[in-house]
Amino acid sequence: MNLLILLVIFAAVLALAFALFNFLGVKKMPEGTEKMSEIASAIRVGASAFIRYEYKVLVVVVAIVAVIMAVVTTWHAAIALVIGAGMSACAGFVGMKIATYANVRVSNRARETRDIGKTVKVAFKGGSVMGLCVGGFALLGLFIVYMIFGFGLSQLQETSASYVNLLGLHFIPFTMTLSGYALGCSIVAMFNRVGGGIYTKAADMGADLVGKTEAHIPEDDPRNPATIADNVGDNVGDVAGLGSDLLESYVGAISSGIILAYHMFLQSQALHLGMTTDLLQKCILFPLVFAAVGLIACCVGIASLLFKSGMSRDPHKDLNGATYVSAGTTMVLGLGAAYLIFGGMDRAVLSSALGFSAGMFSPWIAATIGIAAGVIIGAFAEFYTSTDYNPTKRLARASLEGSALTITQGLALGMKSCMAPCIILGGGIILAYNIAGMYGVSMAAMGMLSFVTATVSVDTYGPISDNAGGIAEMSELDAEVREITDTLDSVGNTTAAIGKGFAIGSGALAALALMISYLYSYNEAGTDLILNLIDPMTLAGAIVGGALPFLFSGMLIEAVAKAARKMVDEVRRQFKEIPGILDGTAKPDYKTCIEISSKGAIGEMKVPSLLAIIVPVACGFIFGAEFVGGLLIGSTVCSIMLAIFTGNAGGAWDNGKKYIETGAIEGHGKGSPAHDAAVVGDTVGDPLKDTVGPCLDIFIKIMSTVSLVAVYVFHHYNLVDLIGKLIG
Amino acid sequence: MNLLILLVIFAAVLALAFALFNFLGVKKMPEGTEKMSEIASAIRVGASAFIRYEYKVLVVVVAIVAVIMAVVTTWHAAIALVIGAGMSACAGFVGMKIATYANVRVSNRARETRDIGKTVKVAFKGGSVMGLCVGGFALLGLFIVYMIFGFGLSQLQETSASYVNLLGLHFIPFTMTLSGYALGCSIVAMFNRVGGGIYTKAADMGADLVGKTEAHIPEDDPRNPATIADNVGDNVGDVAGLGSDLLESYVGAISSGIILAYHMFLQSQALHLGMTTDLLQKCILFPLVFAAVGLIACCVGIASLLFKSGMSRDPHKDLNGATYVSAGTTMVLGLGAAYLIFGGMDRAVLSSALGFSAGMFSPWIAATIGIAAGVIIGAFAEFYTSTDYNPTKRLARASLEGSALTITQGLALGMKSCMAPCIILGGGIILAYNIAGMYGVSMAAMGMLSFVTATVSVDTYGPISDNAGGIAEMSELDAEVREITDTLDSVGNTTAAIGKGFAIGSGALAALALMISYLYSYNEAGTDLILNLIDPMTLAGAIVGGALPFLFSGMLIEAVAKAARKMVDEVRRQFKEIPGILDGTAKPDYKTCIEISSKGAIGEMKVPSLLAIIVPVACGFIFGAEFVGGLLIGSTVCSIMLAIFTGNAGGAWDNGKKYIETGAIEGHGKGSPAHDAAVVGDTVGDPLKDTVGPCLDIFIKIMSTVSLVAVYVFHHYNLVDLIGKLIG
Repeated sequence: MNLLILLVIFAAVLALAFALFNFLGVKKMPEGTEKMSEIASAIRVGASAFIRYEYKVLVVVVAIVAVIMAVVTTWHAAIALVIGAGMSACAGFVGMKIATYANVRVSNRARETRDIGKTVKVAFKGGSVMGLCVGGFALLGLFIVYMIFGFGLSQLQETSASYVNLLGLHFIPFTMTLSGYALGCSIVAMFNRVGGGIYTKAADMGADLVGKTEAHIPEDDPRNPATIADNVGDNVGDVAGLGSDLLESYVGAISSGIILAYHMFLQSQALHLGMTTDLLQKCILFPLVFAAVGLIACCVGIASLLFKSGMSRDPHKDLNGATYVSAGTTMVLGLGAAYLIFGGMDRAVLSSALGFSAGMFSPWIAATIGIAAGVIIGAFAEFYTSTDYNPTKRLARASLEGSALTITQGLALGMKSCMAPCIILGGGIILAYNIAGMYGVSMAAMGMLSFVTATVSVDTYGPISDNAGGIAEMSELDAEVREITDTLDSVGNTTAAIGKGFAIGSGALAALALMISYLYSYNEAGTDLILNLIDPMTLAGAIVGGALPFLFSGMLIEAVAKAARKMVDEVRRQFKEIPGILDGTAKPDYKTCIEISSKGAIGEMKVPSLLAIIVPVACGFIFGAEFVGGLLIGSTVCSIMLAIFTGNAGGAWDNGKKYIETGAIEGHGKGSPAHDAAVVGDTVGDPLKDTVGPCLDIFIKIMSTVSLVAVYVFHHYNLVDLIGKLIG
Repeated sequence: MNLLILLVIFAAVLALAFALFNFLGVKKMPEGTEKMSEIASAIRVGASAFIRYEYKVLVVVVAIVAVIMAVVTTWHAAIALVIGAGMSACAGFVGMKIATYANVRVSNRARETRDIGKTVKVAFKGGSVMGLCVGGFALLGLFIVYMIFGFGLSQLQETSASYVNLLGLHFIPFTMTLSGYALGCSIVAMFNRVGGGIYTKAADMGADLVGKTEAHIPEDDPRNPATIADNVGDNVGDVAGLGSDLLESYVGAISSGIILAYHMFLQSQALHLGMTTDLLQKCILFPLVFAAVGLIACCVGIASLLFKSGMSRDPHKDLNGATYVSAGTTMVLGLGAAYLIFGGMDRAVLSSALGFSAGMFSPWIAATIGIAAGVIIGAFAEFYTSTDYNPTKRLARASLEGSALTITQGLALGMKSCMAPCIILGGGIILAYNIAGMYGVSMAAMGMLSFVTATVSVDTYGPISDNAGGIAEMSELDAEVREITDTLDSVGNTTAAIGKGFAIGSGALAALALMISYLYSYNEAGTDLILNLIDPMTLAGAIVGGALPFLFSGMLIEAVAKAARKMVDEVRRQFKEIPGILDGTAKPDYKTCIEISSKGAIGEMKVPSLLAIIVPVACGFIFGAEFVGGLLIGSTVCSIMLAIFTGNAGGAWDNGKKYIETGAIEGHGKGSPAHDAAVVGDTVGDPLKDTVGPCLDIFIKIMSTVSLVAVYVFHHYNLVDLIGKLIG
């Protein structure tokens, strides 16, 4: 055993210990006034209740999938699935908890110190708990799976022995367990994202549609009955949802590389390309160790901000500093990892077996290409959605012509914004492939996510600050406090754009790597790897696959709209039936609104979430592996487009509205008809960018993973083959 | 020479003679009052002026493309390109002309007779001129190309001789000329659709945004300065645009089958699959003859309506009758054609050479599958967009919650509606392939379009009636007349939904057939035909290709919005600067509005139209044939989705608004806030369904055709290969 593997458990334990330290550190801070405490507690109770509901559904789904998996594939995979689901669920739960503790403490710190630097630290400390849990739990689970199932497997492979299951099918246990682990993470991520996304946007839209548009009261006004539900939504959607989303991306990127390496090994054995078990071990080790050093680097980066004495006046600079330190340290340590792992290998062997054209540093270069691609894609997202640039300014100006042209212009902006990221993605694939073969493509995905702990920490800081602002408003703290939390919040919006670039970029690359593994899984080792689009089955699959993300997105939008309409009805009812709410003499019934959001989200999340799991498997059992191959490629391509389209259109509408609110267009500020039109745009964009876009990232990976797991079975047993045999 | 080929020229001449007869028949009818005559003349002058402008641009583009083609490919193809462009331009021009004569005569007939049946006949007679021109000119051009370049070529092929051009590259003249012919039709169609689409929607949106929303005057009100431009738009967009669009679809479907047959012949020769030159001739003949009998059948169908004595009171029934007679006769005659052409062939030979699994009738069955698929896809379009079904009713009800939820719900509806047509399309591909091989897939496309003359006649009847209503309104004819034209108009909307199903379905299938020919073109004959999506070049191409239709759609939407905004400004200016317009004492300046639409459309149409021609060629010369293969599949899949999405979302918004206007939702009729919200939805949907959707159909075919033409060159000369050679 290479001792470098111990780095993985070291990094995981270090991160989780650091997370615990920060958790306790935040929790022992004072909550502030009684009113603040009361509101915070209402939010916390609401969030916990929802997560409990949601996890109850999850347990059932995971149990069913695990049992099916154990029966038709292997019990190893089923255990790994449960471990993966557990890790992801833990990360989401802890992150949600700390966010509901940190929010009120952020407002209180602002109230007590009136110092932006000190306040930022509290919010970031809270966010770092989520970030560290994502990295820590992901690696902990991977380590466990590796320790249980990863040993001695290379020897097994040399004699081409494999596990035979109840149905008499042969499996490669290690790749199956890794796929199972990744699938477990994906399922939880899907439910957390979809459930949380519906919850948060239903509450948000419901609150806005009546509050802002009809009653003309500001956001987070305590007179709005939906306002607590709205704040609960931030914690379950933007914190827990985001956390388990990025955990699954992280796991997906790492494991796609490992699984791919395994299949390349089998291929190499059949074709005598010179890949030894030793080299296989190295290929398995590299992404694990790279992730481990990345996590350690993120601990350093996070600590560099938390233990800094003199904070600047600009939170954006401080937060970027933490990310840059993390990313830079990751790259340096990663270079060392590449040297330690691949150093001394023969260039020619690396080239023939793996397609490395730049020697031992090839996978490191591929990872760097991934990071660069992620940064550029993020920059384009910023270009299209920030008010510093023309597209969003033009969109804001379109609001002067009314809501129809605002929508039209936003749709056009989102559609046009797809091209640049796709060119970067396409170029990245070609480059990474030429440097380090298909393994390089998955390393590019891993590179994008290697410092995910830092980006999640910064991303989580956003909704915590948003909540802190809400609490400040509801507890009627003075304007200066609200100003501090608003500054914190707006910084969070900017950092989110770059995060989206990494999410969609890494999702696409990891899905492609998984797709290659999928093809390896059912093609005889040694044959050319082909997914031929001219095959009518593959072609039909690609067309149906292309429609899947559209169906999925449409269902999600409709789910949000449905839940939001119920919320609108309830808020309208309360305004009508409880007199005195609007003049502040009567207290609205927050609890009913929270219940409506919860029930709506739980009720609506099941069908779209299960779609991604069931459709590829069902299609596989009916039409066979070629069809599903086409299905995967069609849905991946269309998901990439829809994710970019929804993310950028939604972001631009949101910021276009803010641009108008700052009074940048003379004579058309807050409350003008132009502002009303911009609010319509923002409301339309909300579910697109916060529910649909992020869920699509998971959608493509869950489909690839579940297909990869199931193809061993449906390649042997499917209806079309059966009919063919009966006829022929 | 098989004498059946004479059927083609017979059908073409018959159709064109019938068209001339109907043209003269319409023209000699009286125009009505002086005011009607004056308005009609303004519309006619505006439309003619625009078409002249547009064709000037077209002449330049076609000349440039032809010269480049003559130099880098063959002069044969350049000549065919010019013939194709000429045929398409003629059809568009004649159709536009007759529409501007027929419109006023329809209103006058309604005024004089007050008889809906008699009025329908005038409108349909006008529409039939467009339909007959589409079929007639398309086949006339094909016959000319076949007579000039199609003779003796099979002999050439047997000795595998081919034409050698200036660059020393070998070409197959006949397939090149057919591709050139199809490309010529496509280029004109693209400009007519894009230019006309921008024109009509800019005028429409401009007129509505100020007229309906701000000044609260009804549609087609003579006080609205943009109203003549709006009516001109119907003629240049919905008539000329639609006509050349469907002409290019028709030609694309027929020629894709012929080109494919040619490549299959070469393949068969290399692999000794038993395809003789005789069988090749049959495969070339079949789509031509099928199209010819389809055209003859349509003449019968059209005559059956025009010469019918007792019209029913329901125009829908009469029009459907004409279509059913045409389709039914086409199928019966087509069966005869299959018997005459493939009859007596050995089943085993047909099976091994072409993949026919049902003997001589295989291609006819494939065509029938295509027709069935088109009907079902159209039925789904109707399900999603008609107020008779739940989706649109639900959308209409969402308007009660304001414009944001109207938009959200419409987006969801459009996205969800992609799945069903894609399943039908995928199923159709699998079935057609299993019945008649890849040739069968293109025959399915041809089947969908075989009675295109009848559908275009009915489709053109729509905008003529729409215009007739506008003229009635502007000439202040009494309500009864308007009622008749309104009935005619609403029937047109229903028939349009099914037409869309055929357009996108046939477009997708024809594009796929062209893609296969594309692959044959650069792969050595006799090798397996593979477009491997696992190749990183193909994969990168697919991702970039997926973004292309989004970019294209975004540009089109923006172009419409830009032109519409200029129109809004002008209408507002006139209302302000010319007092008395609104109370009817002063006449608005219609001419300036017409000029704005014209200039806007001409200015904005160039970039998106050229995108489709230039991008695949440029990518080919840089990245080579594999990349472009990926590009084509990516853009085809995404175009299918976007075309369905935009068509159905736009249609549902439009009809949702109409549903509210009928007063179906109690207490929320015309003028209510719900109606205002529905109007916003309709305005957003207009450019989506009438500009973006139809243009996407052409987009995928023009890209496939231009790639097919250019691949002979860029397969040999491209940057990546060059760099590879320099490095290696």
